[in-house]
Amino acid sequence: MKPNLRNRRDFIKATTLAAASLPFIGAWSPVVRAAESGRKLGVALVGLGSLSTNQIAPALQKTNYCKLAGIVTGTPAKAKKWKVRHNLPDNSVYSYETMEQMADNPDIDIVYVVTPNALHAEHTIKAAKAGKHVLCEKPMEVSPEKCQQMIDACKAADRMLAVGYRLHFDPNHIECIRLAREKVFGNLNMIQAEYGFRIGQKQWRLDRALSGGGPLMDVGIYALQATRYISGEEPVSVSAVATNSDPVKFKDIEESIAWQLKFPGGVIATCNTTYNFNGFDRLRAFADRGWFELAPAYGYGGIQGKRSDNKWTPIAGIDQFAVEMDDFAQCILEKRPTKVPGEEGLRDLKIMMAIYEAAKTGKTISLT
Amino acid sequence: MKPNLRNRRDFIKATTLAAASLPFIGAWSPVVRAAESGRKLGVALVGLGSLSTNQIAPALQKTNYCKLAGIVTGTPAKAKKWKVRHNLPDNSVYSYETMEQMADNPDIDIVYVVTPNALHAEHTIKAAKAGKHVLCEKPMEVSPEKCQQMIDACKAADRMLAVGYRLHFDPNHIECIRLAREKVFGNLNMIQAEYGFRIGQKQWRLDRALSGGGPLMDVGIYALQATRYISGEEPVSVSAVATNSDPVKFKDIEESIAWQLKFPGGVIATCNTTYNFNGFDRLRAFADRGWFELAPAYGYGGIQGKRSDNKWTPIAGIDQFAVEMDDFAQCILEKRPTKVPGEEGLRDLKIMMAIYEAAKTGKTISLT
Repeated sequence: MKPNLRNRRDFIKATTLAAASLPFIGAWSPVVRAAESGRKLGVALVGLGSLSTNQIAPALQKTNYCKLAGIVTGTPAKAKKWKVRHNLPDNSVYSYETMEQMADNPDIDIVYVVTPNALHAEHTIKAAKAGKHVLCEKPMEVSPEKCQQMIDACKAADRMLAVGYRLHFDPNHIECIRLAREKVFGNLNMIQAEYGFRIGQKQWRLDRALSGGGPLMDVGIYALQATRYISGEEPVSVSAVATNSDPVKFKDIEESIAWQLKFPGGVIATCNTTYNFNGFDRLRAFADRGWFELAPAYGYGGIQGKRSDNKWTPIAGIDQFAVEMDDFAQCILEKRPTKVPGEEGLRDLKIMMAIYEAAKTGKTISLT
Repeated sequence: MKPNLRNRRDFIKATTLAAASLPFIGAWSPVVRAAESGRKLGVALVGLGSLSTNQIAPALQKTNYCKLAGIVTGTPAKAKKWKVRHNLPDNSVYSYETMEQMADNPDIDIVYVVTPNALHAEHTIKAAKAGKHVLCEKPMEVSPEKCQQMIDACKAADRMLAVGYRLHFDPNHIECIRLAREKVFGNLNMIQAEYGFRIGQKQWRLDRALSGGGPLMDVGIYALQATRYISGEEPVSVSAVATNSDPVKFKDIEESIAWQLKFPGGVIATCNTTYNFNGFDRLRAFADRGWFELAPAYGYGGIQGKRSDNKWTPIAGIDQFAVEMDDFAQCILEKRPTKVPGEEGLRDLKIMMAIYEAAKTGKTISLT
């Protein structure tokens, strides 16, 4: 049995292992420690909401290969505040209208898109055209078509595109991938994944024009992701059922939705998400001879694992955003593929559209 | 907040409360303590397998209103053993061929059918024709048609018919029903229910001709039941997905199956069952302001509850079979309806057939 991941080296090793075993992840090229050159890649944050303020900016203080090098915001007061707090030069502060001018700013290497979902394509494409690599928050966009446009734009500009799937970098999730791939408990049979919360009022997330959907797009996507990287396969069909007890609050998005996926190897996944109540935060996988689970499973920290043989050793938390950004920077510096490319975000969007269609039509939707 | 159930009186009170609030359960008539007459009703067990030997016979030692008064078995060696162990008179020992002769045995009031699923109708109808009340193990039979024949036969003979849904009598489940009905955490949103285990080889349960199906019919039925008595509603539609990784062992039954139910009030239930692995034993209900769960949830004992507000008080276990049999005896003595009548078993069979159809066709099946 392999040891659990206790330090950075083990962690990087396991990440590589897990990545190599996933069907949709390219091989890693030989590692040249880019940080040895001394330069950190400059990151510009697009959208200065809660996630940028409370998670990403603090994470940038902990990265080895990144530093905050610019901001894009539509709110002058925010621009002023961030400029002072982070000691940014005038020419690194942009509005959404001026962000193309980044093309002339060599301090910015990466643009991290943290705007509402339906603006991701616009900001990603602008960044790519300005010659920047793009890390885009999940969900990648609100439709597969817009995801494809983002992929095409980055390809045309010869820039890398990654999706902010932070849990691909969390050692607890990586340990679960290892347990599945190494068949520690035999063949997988079923996966259960659920994530949700009771949302407040007056948020852009409740506005379909900006969000593209409800809890599925926002947090259910983590459950969907988990079923894919734990099974290591792409689902072949989906059935779903949605409910809405508060059509005023949830006027054009789903309130809760449950879906079932079938994978080609025979694994079944049952997933749930909601915007109406708290308590949904679990990932469980059942194999022939035992099970493993994370509960809570999907937060920025505090993830707890368990195994049916009681052999789960607690894993120290990491700053998921710091590791995610450092990995992207290393991919750029070392010219190796990311394990969370745009194509990965596109796949989720296609599946989520099928989940909505299944719930709407009451039909099992084929994904092949 | 109501106190938890700590003693028999509280328990009976709560049972009555829960029953009265379930839509499919009739009102209870005024209670006349039949045991005061001094006579216990005689129970004949049909089928002397593991359940009769290890659960029901011991439970009969603990009942207040019942006693073992006869056996029906196809195995002479078992007949001999039971006759001696339980001090049964010669005329209370029957074979499947002679069980009609019970009509002449006034010591037998109730026939408890514990044979393989596909024999329930035959044995129930014989018992009813012999003038006996019938308690039949779950699942009631292997098709709605056979369930209906059983209901009709008991009605024609003016005998009561109940299904052995022991968890309707378990105080942990009754407490969950109370939490749901009294909306202690507000309106229900979702229910998750799962029960399964890794089955051995060479059992009648693996033979479709005798079982009528796989884990759904055997243990998934408890998860289905729970979603119905926790929601207090009848589902309106179902989607399902089944898997089979071992077509030799599970040659004509499902290995694992997951299903989703939609209830008219908007509650969604996601359920799973399996014959291929251990670890499925949970019931969870999520409401607007909190959740409650049982895990393990469905065993003969050891059920553990939990509430999101940490206010679950442990409930002392009971002998589910003893309470189930005593309740049936009291229903007979007091001429009041049982909360687990044949119609309840028929409803589950109809839903289970729809679950199989949904899994087979990939379509959401309407239940209305």
